[in-house]
Amino acid sequence: MAFSLPAFRPPDFSRAELMAAPLAPFAAAPADGVLPEGFHATSNHPEYVKLEQGWQLLRESRMDAVVVRRQAGELDVVEARRVRSGDAVALGRSEGGEEGILVHVGGFDPPEASGEKFAFRTRGTRETPFSRSYDDLYELLRHEREHGYIVWVAGPAVAFDKDSRDSFRDLIDAGYCHALLAGNAVATHDLEAAVFGTGLGQDVYSQKLVPGGHYHHLDVINRARRAGSLERAVSAMDAAELGGNEGIVHALLRRGVPYVLAGSIRDDGPLPGVFGDVYQAQDAMREHARRATTVITLATQLHSIAFGNMVPSYHVTSAGVVRPVYLTIVDITEFSADKLANRGSAQAMPIVTNVQDFMINLRANLVGRRSS
Amino acid sequence: MAFSLPAFRPPDFSRAELMAAPLAPFAAAPADGVLPEGFHATSNHPEYVKLEQGWQLLRESRMDAVVVRRQAGELDVVEARRVRSGDAVALGRSEGGEEGILVHVGGFDPPEASGEKFAFRTRGTRETPFSRSYDDLYELLRHEREHGYIVWVAGPAVAFDKDSRDSFRDLIDAGYCHALLAGNAVATHDLEAAVFGTGLGQDVYSQKLVPGGHYHHLDVINRARRAGSLERAVSAMDAAELGGNEGIVHALLRRGVPYVLAGSIRDDGPLPGVFGDVYQAQDAMREHARRATTVITLATQLHSIAFGNMVPSYHVTSAGVVRPVYLTIVDITEFSADKLANRGSAQAMPIVTNVQDFMINLRANLVGRRSS
Amino acid sequence: MAFSLPAFRPPDFSRAELMAAPLAPFAAAPADGVLPEGFHATSNHPEYVKLEQGWQLLRESRMDAVVVRRQAGELDVVEARRVRSGDAVALGRSEGGEEGILVHVGGFDPPEASGEKFAFRTRGTRETPFSRSYDDLYELLRHEREHGYIVWVAGPAVAFDKDSRDSFRDLIDAGYCHALLAGNAVATHDLEAAVFGTGLGQDVYSQKLVPGGHYHHLDVINRARRAGSLERAVSAMDAAELGGNEGIVHALLRRGVPYVLAGSIRDDGPLPGVFGDVYQAQDAMREHARRATTVITLATQLHSIAFGNMVPSYHVTSAGVVRPVYLTIVDITEFSADKLANRGSAQAMPIVTNVQDFMINLRANLVGRRSS
Amino acid sequence: MAFSLPAFRPPDFSRAELMAAPLAPFAAAPADGVLPEGFHATSNHPEYVKLEQGWQLLRESRMDAVVVRRQAGELDVVEARRVRSGDAVALGRSEGGEEGILVHVGGFDPPEASGEKFAFRTRGTRETPFSRSYDDLYELLRHEREHGYIVWVAGPAVAFDKDSRDSFRDLIDAGYCHALLAGNAVATHDLEAAVFGTGLGQDVYSQKLVPGGHYHHLDVINRARRAGSLERAVSAMDAAELGGNEGIVHALLRRGVPYVLAGSIRDDGPLPGVFGDVYQAQDAMREHARRATTVITLATQLHSIAFGNMVPSYHVTSAGVVRPVYLTIVDITEFSADKLANRGSAQAMPIVTNVQDFMINLRANLVGRRSS
Repeated sequence: MAFSLPAFRPPDFSRAELMAAPLAPFAAAPADGVLPEGFHATSNHPEYVKLEQGWQLLRESRMDAVVVRRQAGELDVVEARRVRSGDAVALGRSEGGEEGILVHVGGFDPPEASGEKFAFRTRGTRETPFSRSYDDLYELLRHEREHGYIVWVAGPAVAFDKDSRDSFRDLIDAGYCHALLAGNAVATHDLEAAVFGTGLGQDVYSQKLVPGGHYHHLDVINRARRAGSLERAVSAMDAAELGGNEGIVHALLRRGVPYVLAGSIRDDGPLPGVFGDVYQAQDAMREHARRATTVITLATQLHSIAFGNMVPSYHVTSAGVVRPVYLTIVDITEFSADKLANRGSAQAMPIVTNVQDFMINLRANLVGRRSS
Repeated sequence: MAFSLPAFRPPDFSRAELMAAPLAPFAAAPADGVLPEGFHATSNHPEYVKLEQGWQLLRESRMDAVVVRRQAGELDVVEARRVRSGDAVALGRSEGGEEGILVHVGGFDPPEASGEKFAFRTRGTRETPFSRSYDDLYELLRHEREHGYIVWVAGPAVAFDKDSRDSFRDLIDAGYCHALLAGNAVATHDLEAAVFGTGLGQDVYSQKLVPGGHYHHLDVINRARRAGSLERAVSAMDAAELGGNEGIVHALLRRGVPYVLAGSIRDDGPLPGVFGDVYQAQDAMREHARRATTVITLATQLHSIAFGNMVPSYHVTSAGVVRPVYLTIVDITEFSADKLANRGSAQAMPIVTNVQDFMINLRANLVGRRSS
Repeated sequence: MAFSLPAFRPPDFSRAELMAAPLAPFAAAPADGVLPEGFHATSNHPEYVKLEQGWQLLRESRMDAVVVRRQAGELDVVEARRVRSGDAVALGRSEGGEEGILVHVGGFDPPEASGEKFAFRTRGTRETPFSRSYDDLYELLRHEREHGYIVWVAGPAVAFDKDSRDSFRDLIDAGYCHALLAGNAVATHDLEAAVFGTGLGQDVYSQKLVPGGHYHHLDVINRARRAGSLERAVSAMDAAELGGNEGIVHALLRRGVPYVLAGSIRDDGPLPGVFGDVYQAQDAMREHARRATTVITLATQLHSIAFGNMVPSYHVTSAGVVRPVYLTIVDITEFSADKLANRGSAQAMPIVTNVQDFMINLRANLVGRRSS
Repeated sequence: MAFSLPAFRPPDFSRAELMAAPLAPFAAAPADGVLPEGFHATSNHPEYVKLEQGWQLLRESRMDAVVVRRQAGELDVVEARRVRSGDAVALGRSEGGEEGILVHVGGFDPPEASGEKFAFRTRGTRETPFSRSYDDLYELLRHEREHGYIVWVAGPAVAFDKDSRDSFRDLIDAGYCHALLAGNAVATHDLEAAVFGTGLGQDVYSQKLVPGGHYHHLDVINRARRAGSLERAVSAMDAAELGGNEGIVHALLRRGVPYVLAGSIRDDGPLPGVFGDVYQAQDAMREHARRATTVITLATQLHSIAFGNMVPSYHVTSAGVVRPVYLTIVDITEFSADKLANRGSAQAMPIVTNVQDFMINLRANLVGRRSS
């Protein structure tokens, strides 16, 4: 069955209490990066602010940011650290319209939906049946490949196993990845596998620990730093040398898929192109959050929560259509999966498993299994 | 590449210290189920006992049992509770032959193997690459279907998901299961899914909680108890009623695959045929341990450790060939997977993942995916 | 602040729909251990059945059992397998009184309570603050030592560590344990520690693996089997031999605290006194469930779920007072803690931690720390 | 029993193969942040480099860095990104002296030690007995308070619970913390608890979710940003307002304990003083790694692995004494605890538990429990 987007039902603004609601108040930021008292913090849900011209739906929203009114009257959702002195920041801490701000939850629910009915989708344990979660995801991704913007958020585990890494490569090649957000480690492990066939010195297929293998990732990083950029490092790699082991990074570059590599204090290196400043990394990630329609996070608590905070549960298309943003969280522990899934969004779906198998399932169903 | 059994290299009994080793001493059990002081406890490794006629390899051994010499001189490996007063029980607590008992580890290692080299196979984390573990297992199972005895040890999670349960059914139908060891819950959940499409009231496909669904497992159990046996309960189920939802139990019965359902204090019911006495259940499981050549355990700590204790790391075929017993432990936590895998056997292989995906992988590679 | 029991507010039976409710129907069980169609299954909540003489509160209820009306008109809550042919079993699958059965949730909630307010107590993660959970538990246990019936349900981990095991001993000696439910392993590990200072061969204090230590538990079991009972085995142990290492079992016997050791298929031995038949073990555990007012489960999924199913959320004292049964679940994983805590009872409290620290905390706050 | 430092046994440099060993070769770095081919990467063990003047022990070493020879002949251990063009970098990939570099493992082992004997200390599961780990740690910390440099590496969970947070405060006040390494979240949660009594809106004692509590951390951050520094923010807080809830940050500032707050992409804010550039944060953390003699990591994989990579297993005191650096890793999962503990250092000790209980244990045994 083909996927179809659920219709969005906006609030009924003709309701008396919304008709009577005041305009949202604004106050000037007292300094760069400092908010006025009583600032309103955004949620990840569709949210409306009442101005003279009426209720305005926020676009490209996110959690825990503020609403700034620009000169021309348009509303921007801005992180506190990016607010400039004098910016007009919306005030108000209620969400029902009584202060001119309305958070609208459930706009994508089917008409017959009850709270209980949807509760079952936002939690998962190792014993939750995931057959339909997979099937729904396959349909969704086939749709989004053409009509959406699929963002992957990956932890290093995805690159440690041959079939998992090959699957990711094939999914990128097949057009199922519009952006990759990750850290220094994912790219490093992937390039180590390309050159040496190992991940931190362990063969990605046979599990054998290669003698001297602990030098592999340091050598790969050094090679890339000498080249000066990932692009130059990759193009300097000889196809014969690689022996067909090109993986995630090669596929991204070959397909021109944008990526953000955010630095962390765990990094060796880093590779060239990694953001050393985490707030610049946030800004770069946020550009993809503005466009994202489907997000898949793979075995990373750090990156998935970071991105989960900056991606709203809805997206307004260029044609003005309000549609859900789908979020699949893949993690082997309930604790990590729940951390992100428990956000009150009907579109968040945890899958509790090893990412290796998840990637293999996706390739088998979306691309067809290649011979390994 | 087709699977081939590794050759077994027996100990070199011509070594001076083994030539000089004394005969193993025996003493009479002082009472039923009571051992003489200084009894020897068996390991899961190939183990030789020196008698007048020379070093005898134990057959159908297991961990933590004792060696009883029968009248005709043959040696039996017997659980302490099954020893009878007067039985001749081998004594000795050393394993190097100095007391007439020799534990022989590493007999299946390739000639070039070192301890370190094989250490890498007996542990696994969520970040271990499992591509080859799967590939090796596929080859193994294709071989064992014809030439071995494949025992599955299953926890309830395998029956909660549609695709996982269907996969198990298809693997049984394709001949990949020679015995199933489980508890009351696996059979109950499977029959609930057959009749109601749910597991403990949750739809095995859609994840929806069905109103009144908490009665489903009680109703299924009651129905089976009224029928008096699983076989009669299953044959009384109308194919039209089931609507094609036959699963694990139906496949076992259809194929005549033996099974042991061991009771536990968690049980509702129980279903007819479940062993209420756990030591009788052990005896029934042990019959399959004597024959097992490959064991797969699925998300159960209770049953997998129980069976892991009673299955040796080697099997002597009817033709007298000594071959390994392969053991794959599938669990989503390192703690549970390690508990069983850390037994010093090169043939124990953990796979850290959700059993649902494991089952789906096996079906896809061994049977080919059926349309669901 | 001293602990006080919350008042119980019974249903308002003068409500029109309850006044108009029919009498609960009953039907005869068609055979031993077989229920009539449409049987009513009990919950763990206070539950009322309408008879000619009015609404009767079930006593000593439990989950997933049935209601049998005896000749004299009294109502028993009985497991299906204990129903006898011809027993009058209550029918009905609604819980609001419309079929003469009323499940009464929230009777212990404070008047101002809302559903949301109490939701926070029934889940817990590693990041939940547990300071108050501990403090509440200390107050509760001080009260229950004198006025309640405290049942401990223990997994083997509690006996592997010196301070944890000593703490349990001291809590028993101080009167904080009215019954212990466990398996063969807890008693075996405890006696191994008494005699050898080890648990499965590892020193319970220094962590050192003792050479030959894998024989310890087998020797302890054999010794007990030779003695014929735990009591005789323990009294045959020489105080000098033990060197002050007496632990849990010694304290139970010294204090005359009843215990149930339920067998499982993982057992070595078993020790004398262990129930081989799990359904007999259930019956023995159920006797303590009938009396329990506070339950603490320690790192055991098998035993805690088993007992959790058979203990109601309320207890009717001999004086006719309806009071809560408090349930504390201690486990290091959210998955296990949630399994039992998620039962809709405001009195279920998970603590996600290592049981060793839990035991040490309890001793320090209830008994005062002894010098070790 | 009082703690005493183990003696260090240096290598026997009079061994023939070490006498015959060549001088270590060096090569110039080809560019800033780029290493010469064949560079030698350091371990966390004592490591000697052969120069004209003889074997030189590296000081302030770390894992995965390189050795740079300065003009005056002294050797620095430097991260690759901090190498400057032309720096003389040691070459060589063997560790036995054959290329002039000798890695010396086991220098702190007692003379009688065998590999097996110490293996038991470097792994731990939830079932490992931790009584002695705690007792050893108490003795160690009492010694180190006076004679060492204790570095804490903390994840946010330590600040979510009242008793845990109070315990940390008391340990700092009692002199048991010489430096704290953490992220933006720890300080934010701690200040939220000081001002509001909550952590992310949940009461740190009662577990209650406070209405509007999701604004608390944003308000605390905004307040600190307005103040311009943590110090000014804290001194602007009114003691009356706080009501005695001062915690970790207050104690650090009151005692003048240095701290490093490293930024991450998950951050809200950040607080003033947080390092936005993770490599600058690494440099700041490394200053404490150079001085550390004991390290305790609390429920953080990111920070503990980051710091674990930069702290060596030994420290050379100003008096020239070579002593161990002790490392205790506290985490509730085996996976995280093992990640850091499995480094071949006899001084690494995992404790698998909830950090809340760990902190409470430390306070009770080192400070004595305050009334809460």
